[in-house]
This record gives sequence, structure tokens and C-alpha cells, in this order.
Amino acid sequence: MSQEIGDSKGYSKDALEMFDRSNVAIGDAIIVRASDDEISGILMPRYESADKNHLVVKLNSGYNIGIKISKVKSISKAVNLSYQKPSFKTFNVATETTKSNLGSELQEIQQSYTVEKGKLALPKIALISTGGTIASKIDYRTGGVKSALSAAELYESVPELAEYAIIEPEVLLNEYSENLNPKHWEIIARRISEKLRAEKYRGVIISHGTDTMHYTASALSFALQNIPIPVVLVGAQRSSDRPSSDAALNLISAMLFVLKSDVCGVFVAMHATTSDDTIACHIGTRVRKNHTSRRDAFESIDTDPVAIISGENVTVQTNWSRRTDIQKISKSDNKNSPFIIKPNFDPRAALLKFHPGFDPGLISHVVDSGYRAIVLEGTGLGHVSRDCFREIQKALDAGLMVLMTSQCIWGRTGMTVYDTGRDLLEMGVTPLSDILPETAIVKAMWALANSSSLESAKRLMQENIAHEISPVSPIV
Amino acid sequence: MSQEIGDSKGYSKDALEMFDRSNVAIGDAIIVRASDDEISGILMPRYESADKNHLVVKLNSGYNIGIKISKVKSISKAVNLSYQKPSFKTFNVATETTKSNLGSELQEIQQSYTVEKGKLALPKIALISTGGTIASKIDYRTGGVKSALSAAELYESVPELAEYAIIEPEVLLNEYSENLNPKHWEIIARRISEKLRAEKYRGVIISHGTDTMHYTASALSFALQNIPIPVVLVGAQRSSDRPSSDAALNLISAMLFVLKSDVCGVFVAMHATTSDDTIACHIGTRVRKNHTSRRDAFESIDTDPVAIISGENVTVQTNWSRRTDIQKISKSDNKNSPFIIKPNFDPRAALLKFHPGFDPGLISHVVDSGYRAIVLEGTGLGHVSRDCFREIQKALDAGLMVLMTSQCIWGRTGMTVYDTGRDLLEMGVTPLSDILPETAIVKAMWALANSSSLESAKRLMQENIAHEISPVSPIV
Repeated sequence: MSQEIGDSKGYSKDALEMFDRSNVAIGDAIIVRASDDEISGILMPRYESADKNHLVVKLNSGYNIGIKISKVKSISKAVNLSYQKPSFKTFNVATETTKSNLGSELQEIQQSYTVEKGKLALPKIALISTGGTIASKIDYRTGGVKSALSAAELYESVPELAEYAIIEPEVLLNEYSENLNPKHWEIIARRISEKLRAEKYRGVIISHGTDTMHYTASALSFALQNIPIPVVLVGAQRSSDRPSSDAALNLISAMLFVLKSDVCGVFVAMHATTSDDTIACHIGTRVRKNHTSRRDAFESIDTDPVAIISGENVTVQTNWSRRTDIQKISKSDNKNSPFIIKPNFDPRAALLKFHPGFDPGLISHVVDSGYRAIVLEGTGLGHVSRDCFREIQKALDAGLMVLMTSQCIWGRTGMTVYDTGRDLLEMGVTPLSDILPETAIVKAMWALANSSSLESAKRLMQENIAHEISPVSPIV
Repeated sequence: MSQEIGDSKGYSKDALEMFDRSNVAIGDAIIVRASDDEISGILMPRYESADKNHLVVKLNSGYNIGIKISKVKSISKAVNLSYQKPSFKTFNVATETTKSNLGSELQEIQQSYTVEKGKLALPKIALISTGGTIASKIDYRTGGVKSALSAAELYESVPELAEYAIIEPEVLLNEYSENLNPKHWEIIARRISEKLRAEKYRGVIISHGTDTMHYTASALSFALQNIPIPVVLVGAQRSSDRPSSDAALNLISAMLFVLKSDVCGVFVAMHATTSDDTIACHIGTRVRKNHTSRRDAFESIDTDPVAIISGENVTVQTNWSRRTDIQKISKSDNKNSPFIIKPNFDPRAALLKFHPGFDPGLISHVVDSGYRAIVLEGTGLGHVSRDCFREIQKALDAGLMVLMTSQCIWGRTGMTVYDTGRDLLEMGVTPLSDILPETAIVKAMWALANSSSLESAKRLMQENIAHEISPVSPIV
């Protein structure tokens, strides 16, 4: 009883008495009758500092619902309801039959890899865990989600993974991604480089929190130049012990992409739709988290995803080879690959979002604080109010790069169309075409750390390094 | 000749000699043969500080194209090509017949209005011009677009407008919208209020630059409470003397929405698709400019547009009346309408966008500079790195409101799901559900100016004032 009180201290005395009378406790599968509704689910603990007049039930869909206690008519224990393991619509635990269905292309690739363990000639994939929801569990004390699962545990919880490749899991970091910073980008880039120089991998999968996955994907795109294999970041919007978790399908699809496609570079693999059947693989520098909670939160901006993974089919978009010079995976030993690592980032770059009433004093503060670059998130085609011109001139005079992106997200800057844009260009502001603001701040930190002068950093910013700038109209 | 040289000073000597040989000048309709292509269009002046190796031709589509001078085989004057007036697919200059086609509902409304001028009983619409592309012309000197046209000129250039209503045009401001600030919001709000108290209008249309149109729409949504008529902001992504201009259709559709629908409030009317046939009318607080250049740049976020205008059909979305308590237009004289104007904004609110490597020193600077509120654009469900916690605590201790939105744009904050969010809540950060960051900064300035205490400002921020928060799940 004392333990139940501990679990349920967020609930009012009335609610606890009702649970007692109904013979239910936190964590039980219950049926609640309230007003005209009957709700089935798991009785959840109540977040301690929240309002005490609702009880919280986790529905089968994975969503929590709050029910006003005064409206509850009765509560009873459910018999056939329990916390379900994730269900895989498209992937059953693999058998010898499904293995041979993987297609001759995959079998051919498998032949080229050394047999290390077991009887199958499976390719090797490095699985580097950095934290996030994909490696998280629900904390029954607070009802929240905690970063907990290691890559090894993840591997165990999705046993299907073992049927496709030899996975080498490793826990490199264990952070919610909002806590990652440029130092962590360097750690991840260096670790990938070390692994690739030591052994032959078909690809690297990085499990990562979704909050800043696109920032890390951009950082790795710039840091790992000419990488000869695919590096795929993968996350989950719902934790892996929730029935609606997207963790397993995202992971398995990332693996299939690594195994069955011939492209290399840095990518993000996440649900393409809200249903649990199609995964999109996005270019690392051209992807954005565009929804706080949906499983298909990630979208390619101003471009299509590189690949769509549906069931066991991996379809690389036809326009990918046309618009990229990314080299195909080399069949030679990648110990001697020509890839270069440039893992340093200079954090002295600020991202400032302009808005009506924006205080130009923020620009001055950034100049006075010793920053070396400002990425402006301007309006429309790349504008800010003329009230900011004096401070922008001050920043330029002090030797900072002032870079222009657009808060529109889609489309590119066009700074020769209006007076405002032309004035800013004349002053020396550098337009960044359709580089996403999020990619631009990462690239600015990278360009500062990898240039000997401001001029060469500015040139790097305008050069298309890792597909961060989409192709423009053919004749120019 | 001297004038031509003036116009063409952006071009190299070689290019100018080629123009002379070919007997063409800036502004001429020309045909250029280059490599395997033949390009027809207007020879444009070259932006002075741009690269001199291309000539610029404005295509019929309205887009400019650059052609490498070294690839040009020949240039000749085109005969049947000239700058076209905007073409109206759906609206021909109205005749008596089209007037009677407007439908009995409209005729009924027309009967209720006093005949002031002419023979028709047309309703009155105020057209307030504030500037922007919709009221702009191309400057042939620089090839750029200049804010120039007044509301009166606009009215003359789209004569169809006169067939639908008596329009009272007025130039209130003449600014690119990136230069507008909270003081301008106040001027616009006060002017609307004055007009409504002086005379009976069916609605108000505001022509506005698109860059910050959604910010102004939010500001007016908060400032004009219980407004009994529709206020529709309308802009153009292409200037009105360009063949591809969207100005005319946006304006005419905004008028049809005002005339034929029975909703009131503040809205934004812009192209719903890239083709020139459907206009969407968005809720003023739930709309965002999501593309730098496309005509359908504006999108409703986390909701549907209130109305779709297709040809002369105005379809108000069925779910609008269900989800709003906005009053229907009163047939009584609106001199005595109950609407309240709250036009003040306190600009001491900062919008800070978090990213990996974000310097918490920016938060400290804002606190030390005497701000009263910070709107954070956090990641995912509303997170920032724990590196910022100390500075956020400092801001809260100093009596600032710290408000959380998400840079995902779509979806709402969910700060009880992860440790980070719960820690921030415990500290006293206020989550703003799905208020858009752009709407949130406007609302914060408004709440500060219209509250007697920090606590009441915080309450205002969490209250749904003007549809800025979408409805949540039914049982809570």
C-alpha cells in the first residue's frame, strides 16, 4: 500500500479512495465509465505538480487522456488488456524464408562480407546510440519518459535486426538531444571516423533524440566529407515501450536502406506518414522536424527524400543520382578510403530571428560579445527592417560574417528583388539561397572552424558542400 | 542614348556593344538565341553590383532568367511580345449580367446598404493601403520592385473591384512590411476603429506587404476585440505590373469573402495553390508565410482555412462555426457595436530561437536590458538545453515572463512528457500550446501592454483570445 501511495501522490485523496474502493492501482489495465463514455487503458501515475481533479489513462493508441474525477461513474479492472509489445505490421520475426526473400542484390552484398559470427554471411552495421526517445522508457513515477535504453538493449528489444546484418551496438552518449552541442557533434564524427578506419562496415546507424537530430545530421554532413558509406540518423517520436512506438520500424528501415541502396552520405530515416508502413530517408542537410509529436514529423525541404522504404522495398528516388555527385559505395576495403574528417565547430555564431519590433541591440550585443558570425532568419526573400541596418553595418565593420536565411523555411533568398535586399547586399550581407536556418547555423560554426580567413569562410558558406543548397534553374 | 547607358550601366562593354549591333535596348521585347535555346522576353536592366557576364530577360511567366553573354548567338527584337496586363482567368470586367449572377444572398445584402453613389445599392468596403508588393511597380533602373502604388491607383488598375462594392480607398502607410513595427500595428488598429465608428462598412481590406502580413494579422486579431465585420489582409507575391501577379485575384477574392460570407474577425486572403484560381482565407493568428516566393506561400497551421474562394464561390469551412464563437455580422448600425479596441503593444519582449550551441548569455543580455518577456522557440515539445536553465531561472527571478513555443511550427508544446520539459515547468516557464512563435511574440507584446501584473499577463498568454490556440481533445 505504501508503494502505491508513493506512485500515486499526484492524485487527490478522493481519487485515491475511489481507486481503493474499485480495487485498482496505478499501472493496472482498467475500464472507466465517465458520463456517456467508456474508456479502456492503463491507469497512469499523475504528474506531481499537475491539477488533481483528473485521472490519467493511457489509451491503446499510446496517447494519455485526462478524465475529470467528478465525472467518473465507475472504475473496474480490465481483464484482457495489458501493455502491448510493439507490433510490426510489415516485419515479422524473420525466418529462413523471409531471409531468402531479401532479394538477390542483398544476397550478393552479403557474399562480399566476411562471415564473423553464425552461419550467415551478413554485412556489418555499426549502431551508435546517443540517447533520445528511441532509447527511452516510461518512468512510472512521474508518467514521463526517461532516456535509458542502451544500443545493446535496443538490439535485444527489436530482435528482427539480427536477421539482416551483424550489428555492433555501442553506447557513445546518453542524452536527450536538446542537450547535445557542437562538442558532441565532434565526438560522434570522430567515433564514426575511428570505426570506419578500423573495420569494414556497410553503414552506420545513429540512434538520436529527434529534437535536434536534423542539426546533428547537418553537422555530420559537413564533418564527414566524401564518406564512402551511408550514415543514417534514426529516432523515435514515441518511446519503444509504447504500443504506438515508431522506434522499431524506423530502425529496421534505416538498416534496409543501408543494406539495399547504393548511396552514401548522411541521412535521417523517419516515418513518412502517420501510418506505420512507409519510412522516408532524407538528405542530412535538407530535413527539418516540422511537427512536435507526429511520427511523420520530419520533412525534406525544397527537395524529395532520397529514398522511400516500404516493407522490405527500398526505392531510391530517381532524381537523386541526377542531382548529386555522391560517390557510390566502394567495394574496396574502406581502410584506405579518401574520406576526410573535419570535425571542428566554432560556436561563436549566433542565430537571430527577425520579427517586427526586433531590437537591433541584440545584434550589437552579439558583436560586443566576440561572436564571429550572425545567421539572420529574415522575413520573405531575406529582409530585415531598416532599423537594423546600422547594427548590421557595425557587425560587418567588426569583421563578422552576416548571413541571411529566411524564416519562411521553404524557398530561397532573393536579395536583388527589393530595395531592402539590395541595400543589405551592398552592405556586405551574404545571402544563403535555400540553406535552412538550422543548417546555416551549423554550417557557420563549421565554416568558422575550417577557414583561415573571413573571406574563405564566406566562400565556404556560399559553396554547396553537402547538398545544403538545392540546384537552381538550369540556365544562369 | 545617354539614357540607355544610364539604364544599362550594370552591363559590360561587350554586352552593350552586342545590344547596339542587334539594335535592341533595355525594356525591349527580344528573342535571344543561346546554345540550343531560344528565349523570349523583356531585356531587363542589370542590377548594378551584380556579375556582368549575364544578360537578364524577364520571361512571360514573370520570372527573370540570366543568360551567359558568351553563350549568346544572336539577339533580335520580338514583334508580338509586349508587357502583358494581368489576365483574369475567373474575373472578366463585370457587366450587368455578371452582376446579377452574384447570387440572391449578395443582392439581399446589397439592398440593405444605402445607395450613395451611382444607381446600384452596393455595400461599402474600406480599402486601407499600407504598402508592399501588392502596391508596387518594377523600377526599370535597378530591375527591382519599388513600393509605389496607392490604394486609389490599385483600385484603378483593377477596375473589376468597382462592380462588387463601393470601395473607399485610403493610403495609410507606404512601407515594405519588413519595416513595420508595433507602432504601425497601433496606427492601423486605430484607423480601422475610427472608420467603423464613423460609418457602416461591410468589411475592411488591408493591402500589406507579405513579409510580415501574418504578424500584423495577429496584432490586429488581439487589438480589435469582438470586431463585428471582417478585416482581411491581402498581399501579393508578384508586383501588380507583372503578368504573373497574384495581386488582382487576391484582392477580388478578399472582397468576395467580405461580401458573401457571414463571419467576422481578422483574416489573411492569399492564393491557396500555385494556379490562379483558388484563394484561401486564413485565421489571422494561425497563418504563416511558408515560402519565400510562391504565390501560395501562406498556410494555415494546425487548422484549415476559414474559407475557400474559387471563382465567385465563397465556401466557408463547415468546422468554422463549430469551433468559434465569433459573432455573425450585425445588421444593426455598427456605430454602436460592442467592439473594443486594445491597440497598445509593449515591445519589451524578445523572441529567442534555441539551437545546439545556443549561448545562454543571450538570455542574460535580454534580462539585463530591461525586457519584460522572453518567447523561446524551443525544440520539439518545448525544450532547451539544460545549459540554459540557470539563465532562465535568472529571467524568472527578475520577473520576466518566459514563454515556450516550438520551432517545429506544427503541433503543440507538451512539457510534461520529458524530464527537460517538466524541469522547465517547475521553474515557472509558461507553455503556449500551439501558438505559433510569430503569433506568440506579438501576443506577448500585447499582453504586456494590456495587463496590470505579470500574473495577469501570463494568464492572458494561456487564454485563447483570438483562435491562436487550436482546440484540444474533447475529454480533459
